[in-house]
Amino acid sequence: MSIRLGILGYGNLGKGVECAVRQNDDMELAAVFTRRDPDSVSILTEGVKVYNTSEITAHKDEIDVLIICGGSATDLPTMTPMYAKDFNVVDSFDTHAKIPEHFANVDAAAKSGNKTAMISVGWDPGMFSMNRAIANAILPEGKDYTFWGRGVSQGHSDAIRRIDGVLDARQYTIPVEEALESVRKGENPDLTTRQKHTRECFVVAEEGADKARIEKEIVTMPNYFDEYDVTVHFISMEELMRDHKGIPHGGFVIRSGVTGINKENRHIIEYSLKLDSNPEFTSSVLIAYARASYRMNSEGMYGCKTVFDVPPAYLCRETPEYLRSHML
Amino acid sequence: MSIRLGILGYGNLGKGVECAVRQNDDMELAAVFTRRDPDSVSILTEGVKVYNTSEITAHKDEIDVLIICGGSATDLPTMTPMYAKDFNVVDSFDTHAKIPEHFANVDAAAKSGNKTAMISVGWDPGMFSMNRAIANAILPEGKDYTFWGRGVSQGHSDAIRRIDGVLDARQYTIPVEEALESVRKGENPDLTTRQKHTRECFVVAEEGADKARIEKEIVTMPNYFDEYDVTVHFISMEELMRDHKGIPHGGFVIRSGVTGINKENRHIIEYSLKLDSNPEFTSSVLIAYARASYRMNSEGMYGCKTVFDVPPAYLCRETPEYLRSHML
Repeated sequence: MSIRLGILGYGNLGKGVECAVRQNDDMELAAVFTRRDPDSVSILTEGVKVYNTSEITAHKDEIDVLIICGGSATDLPTMTPMYAKDFNVVDSFDTHAKIPEHFANVDAAAKSGNKTAMISVGWDPGMFSMNRAIANAILPEGKDYTFWGRGVSQGHSDAIRRIDGVLDARQYTIPVEEALESVRKGENPDLTTRQKHTRECFVVAEEGADKARIEKEIVTMPNYFDEYDVTVHFISMEELMRDHKGIPHGGFVIRSGVTGINKENRHIIEYSLKLDSNPEFTSSVLIAYARASYRMNSEGMYGCKTVFDVPPAYLCRETPEYLRSHML
Repeated sequence: MSIRLGILGYGNLGKGVECAVRQNDDMELAAVFTRRDPDSVSILTEGVKVYNTSEITAHKDEIDVLIICGGSATDLPTMTPMYAKDFNVVDSFDTHAKIPEHFANVDAAAKSGNKTAMISVGWDPGMFSMNRAIANAILPEGKDYTFWGRGVSQGHSDAIRRIDGVLDARQYTIPVEEALESVRKGENPDLTTRQKHTRECFVVAEEGADKARIEKEIVTMPNYFDEYDVTVHFISMEELMRDHKGIPHGGFVIRSGVTGINKENRHIIEYSLKLDSNPEFTSSVLIAYARASYRMNSEGMYGCKTVFDVPPAYLCRETPEYLRSHML
């Protein structure tokens, strides 16, 4: 019997989940829920219904795991606790500072309904967090480094779009190659913000806009750009659409540590991702944790979980016997 | 209260465990067991006793987890099932083909004594296996690649040493850079054995030995060398001792997969290790899984486990709350 998934929110992430379900033969898409008019939403999967979010609890017996594809700023803090009582849920909550509070709210809700909720699933938080934690457990004496990119930062792109005279923009976060190499060599550098990443901006300006002013507003923008080396390219809307349509991302988690009676031996653990589509990869991670949510729930493991709480075997389609004989 | 560890077998791996314990403040070394005369074994940790293996069961109440540092060929298949009844144990059994049989034997023993056993812990099998399994769960449509090195292969070094006229030897396994780059680019190449790794040998020959014959015996040796491009360097014993004393190793596990409605987006997940000391890194992994063994046992999770069965949080010294607020 397939695991029946529901998607709540049909944006980039929801579409990514819909595509990922098709690659997992132990799962099926049961329904999509949207805050929009369901008739205005056309999905890729034939025969699957789209409902308004207001009808969701009426469908709770048709859904094994609900994947909540909302934003971390305003959607998930209320939605995940709200639905965790009636559904096994997975979300990608990524406001690092508010994770403990979100965890507590979701945990109480899930436990009250004997459900299993997975929060902060994706790659960061998610796979990067797991790798940081395990690498720290293996090498207690060492240093952690996280680099992001080359990839599109939605937040930085939006910040540029808010500047007067800007029609559209795309911002790439790029790790500094020399910094990466120094870390990989085990030199344990202390790196400033500027030394770790550069930012490259592709900007479409309004006809006749003052490009020098726009560029200055970008490079001096506090928090977003002022601590970085920033390159600004003005391009046409056609070029933006042609060359910068994708949403690639990725990054590197590196732990550099020592062992030995005199700490004479150095070890580098590196985990890296190179992603053509940030939302589709995130969706693929959500799907794997949806499988874990379903299985852990069926074994009575209720409450809120994160990537730290899930044994790898629960993520895999294959049986434990298969994993041991083919992947160990 | 500290987790009290016992070490069974005091070779490179056992010494590595002894060093790693000192880096983990929630653990202490309780005793070392050896098949040799205990008086002939001097260890690095003051105040810790060395006993003969024959006395081990008399000390079972002093030890929370026993780390079995034996060889996979003959030691572990008998030792781990033998001790898993009386101790929580961890081993690094690495004969891939015999893992299912070893698992079954250890599982029965551990369950009969309400103990928790971890087998095949280390980096391959171990961290590499975990990364293969998780990457497959995230990207079901894709291809796996594993490269080993640059590092010393003990088995290949031993094979050279068995050749007539060879005094000592060190063999390095080296991944082919072009193959790695092709995989990282997402080209999904089909790679032959020869295209993935080269082998470099440093050989000390006896005075007057026929070096041409030795070289020919190496490069044509079935299974070990004949399918590879092999380089042989003859060096002096002094050079071997000076330049090739270490036991470095490492490698790369890469999954290249696609997502999207038309599989139009490619993703690369890469996990890599660069290790100055293969046994010390392996020991550090064993220690982290010893912690998990102890905790899972205290929660009644009995039987044989592998890296697929352990939630990452069980490996970490930190509390779940700390992990969520600092590492997620």
